[in-house]
Amino acid sequence: MTTPAIANDAYAELEKRFARMSAVNRAGAILNWDRSTMMPAGASEDRADQLATLNVVAHEMMVAPDMPDLLARAEEASRDLDSWRSANLREMRHAWIHASALPGALVEARTRASSACEMVWREARKNADFKSLLPSFTEVLKVTIEVGQAKSAALGVPLYDALLDEYEPGGRSVRIDALFAELKSFLPDLLARVLERQTGRPAPLPLDGPFPVEAQRVLGTEMARTLGFDFHNGRLDVSAHPFTGGTPDDVRITTRYDEKDFARALMGVLHETGHALYEAGLPRNWRRQPVGLARGMVLHESQSLLMEMQACRSRAFIDFAAPRMRATFGRSGPAWTAENIHRVYTRVAPGFIRVDADEVTYPLHVMLRYRLERAILGRDLRLADLPGAWNDGMKELLGIVPPDDSLGCLQDIHWPDGAWGYFPTYTMGALAAAQLFAAARKAVPGLMEAIGRGDFAPLLGWLRTHVHGQGSIGGTDWILSQATGAPLGVGAFKAHLESRYLSA
Amino acid sequence: MTTPAIANDAYAELEKRFARMSAVNRAGAILNWDRSTMMPAGASEDRADQLATLNVVAHEMMVAPDMPDLLARAEEASRDLDSWRSANLREMRHAWIHASALPGALVEARTRASSACEMVWREARKNADFKSLLPSFTEVLKVTIEVGQAKSAALGVPLYDALLDEYEPGGRSVRIDALFAELKSFLPDLLARVLERQTGRPAPLPLDGPFPVEAQRVLGTEMARTLGFDFHNGRLDVSAHPFTGGTPDDVRITTRYDEKDFARALMGVLHETGHALYEAGLPRNWRRQPVGLARGMVLHESQSLLMEMQACRSRAFIDFAAPRMRATFGRSGPAWTAENIHRVYTRVAPGFIRVDADEVTYPLHVMLRYRLERAILGRDLRLADLPGAWNDGMKELLGIVPPDDSLGCLQDIHWPDGAWGYFPTYTMGALAAAQLFAAARKAVPGLMEAIGRGDFAPLLGWLRTHVHGQGSIGGTDWILSQATGAPLGVGAFKAHLESRYLSA
Repeated sequence: MTTPAIANDAYAELEKRFARMSAVNRAGAILNWDRSTMMPAGASEDRADQLATLNVVAHEMMVAPDMPDLLARAEEASRDLDSWRSANLREMRHAWIHASALPGALVEARTRASSACEMVWREARKNADFKSLLPSFTEVLKVTIEVGQAKSAALGVPLYDALLDEYEPGGRSVRIDALFAELKSFLPDLLARVLERQTGRPAPLPLDGPFPVEAQRVLGTEMARTLGFDFHNGRLDVSAHPFTGGTPDDVRITTRYDEKDFARALMGVLHETGHALYEAGLPRNWRRQPVGLARGMVLHESQSLLMEMQACRSRAFIDFAAPRMRATFGRSGPAWTAENIHRVYTRVAPGFIRVDADEVTYPLHVMLRYRLERAILGRDLRLADLPGAWNDGMKELLGIVPPDDSLGCLQDIHWPDGAWGYFPTYTMGALAAAQLFAAARKAVPGLMEAIGRGDFAPLLGWLRTHVHGQGSIGGTDWILSQATGAPLGVGAFKAHLESRYLSA
Repeated sequence: MTTPAIANDAYAELEKRFARMSAVNRAGAILNWDRSTMMPAGASEDRADQLATLNVVAHEMMVAPDMPDLLARAEEASRDLDSWRSANLREMRHAWIHASALPGALVEARTRASSACEMVWREARKNADFKSLLPSFTEVLKVTIEVGQAKSAALGVPLYDALLDEYEPGGRSVRIDALFAELKSFLPDLLARVLERQTGRPAPLPLDGPFPVEAQRVLGTEMARTLGFDFHNGRLDVSAHPFTGGTPDDVRITTRYDEKDFARALMGVLHETGHALYEAGLPRNWRRQPVGLARGMVLHESQSLLMEMQACRSRAFIDFAAPRMRATFGRSGPAWTAENIHRVYTRVAPGFIRVDADEVTYPLHVMLRYRLERAILGRDLRLADLPGAWNDGMKELLGIVPPDDSLGCLQDIHWPDGAWGYFPTYTMGALAAAQLFAAARKAVPGLMEAIGRGDFAPLLGWLRTHVHGQGSIGGTDWILSQATGAPLGVGAFKAHLESRYLSA
């Protein structure tokens, strides 16, 4: 009689506390969005103080002295919990392990090292001067390894996996190794065939600007709405780097406009809309508890890439969108046919910059970074030797060598910012996107035809049920298995690339 | 040896805690601004949860169990503190008394009663239906009296003063009674003379619209900047009800635009700029401690009215602004001379609505509300009898009777929203504005001539030193005495009205 009552009490108390942490974190999310979109420049120190304080407040709630006891008592009688609550308790424990693994001094050292290095990095990239980055970069690496060691001990997994776990809970490098090995076995060859085939066909005609920002904004708004973005619970704004922020009930996406190239801003909006739809579709009753949060970066990136790459670079969608593009910008002629626009949107070309890469070459960029960060964290590669190793890898994987480090190992903010173990989630997300989209097409008859009419309801309905509404009730592989019949694999991605780039 | 060390420790710990509360409160201020300007409609419950949580977090910091001991220990050795720290400790104690005076249940009851009544009020005002408001209004009054009783006991002042103290620390009704009695002794007669004189002169020519919103925004931005508003640390946006929000380093003012009437939005911007300059000018080293906050609503309103009424309705300023108005809207002709615009901006006309009132009749609106709220809180007037008492008072003070309650006792949100003891600060602010502006003109040679050139630096410099930079180092009367040589009085306001409306 008493044990369940005690356990329920403990679990109920935990739900209350995590709801409170959620509110503090959601407040912080809006303030972060404001910082990138609205905040006047002079307020950055003020805002940093607010955000740091909210982080400390939430962290103190998490590591309150009685938390271990509450978690233990709730777990002791977890058989009395239904599946959502049971999974919620598991996620609470996982969040607590991450929060309590690091002593306060290390948390602070990490923040300080990353902030300092990020500032140096901006200059170093501008000047293609890797040497100037090295001292602060070395400090970031040192702190990152300390963090990895502490979390490795707390989670009982290898150091790299412990860092990866921050972005992709349950993610393991042994899985990544296998997936990337399979990718490597066919991707370079596939790329060569795509490029050869492309050479034999007419190059896409350029879509010439200028494209007024206001017209681009109207088009982006219309397209986001077409995909299912609900402006009653969200916004679209401008920031230097596009992102999705805010909260599930208040999702805020951003883009940036280039008057010479509307395609980039538009595809950016569609990409962020994919992220936003995931957040907006999280389980209504659980979105303020750990179990109701997005599962991790793999599924998050799968949702943005599913929209941007799978759905919106399909010929069906371009057939729908092309007349709207022509009308918005008042254009016509051979460059503005759906066929040509589709060619523009599916052009493959090896390049130096990851964020500009097409979907065929993108995984090669990621595989390079994954290989290098594992070598560096495993002390098999010295930071000082990174530029050379980078260029060797580019040569091997993409067949090109960057002329300087700003187009090479200095291009990404991630490592200087302390995000190690993050890169592979991009490509795992691309694999998951292909796998989910294939499953949706199979499960929902007429899905592509609906997309061709600008009707995303069938696709969104399937995603809501099989991905968004699942929150974190299971792991990424569990959710994928339920949705597609199999854990994460390479097959659907390979089939997608072959179908889009080598057939028809 | 030990006592000062202990006291310093206690005070230092208090500074840390109040800095943390300040960060939480500043985060809340930005979220409040966002709610009124940016937030999508569907996020209101989400946002309410965030803000309520931040309030609880800050409140729990304030009423932490060891706070009484910390305050007592710090006060015991306060002789070791310099004047800023000593005043800071006094303000900490004052804030703590307010926070700890109310049991949690009463705080919650107050929030609930006000929210419920405010919603009923919106409908009741629309329908001019006072009866429908009465039940929830009665509940608000009941809770307000409980709050007043609790704070009266904690502060050792009468109930009305305890409520007033929330808005104007140290404000006392006995002072208001004296000031308002003096106002009453000349204002009705002065109004009659102004109206008679106005009748004998040509009516101002109307400034006909439309005035495009974007042009109004540009003009408002230019004028705010002219007054000294720094967009490096602030923003100007749109909201349903103009306000000043944000933080001293990130001041955010709002206005609303009416294409038929640019004057209202512009004067609104100038008014809010006055508030914003106060916040932006708070002492840099203390603005995150209680002593560095704005003193209270009287000085706050004095700063907005000093800019809007004293400086910007002066003929000198209109001479400067008129050519800019003509250029912005592409107008010319007799309506657009500085003389006519000045006549428009200084027109006096008794009306039913307080927020539309000119500066001559405005105090009469406030005196009516003050009289009525004191009678209601003192149980000398039943809420049910408010409409009749309101109309009688309007007849007596302004000579007009509203045709229905939406133009009468239902017009203001304050009482339904639980803000009792607030109204008198508007008119005390008007008195303080006149007194400060007169002192500034006397102290700074050429001040009006500078304003006539659009140069507000001399005025702003004086205000920075004598008002803004004082924060809460002393009480309102202390700050006014230091700045003007006398505590708050009626003389300067009377002289101002006579000079502007009866001479020349």
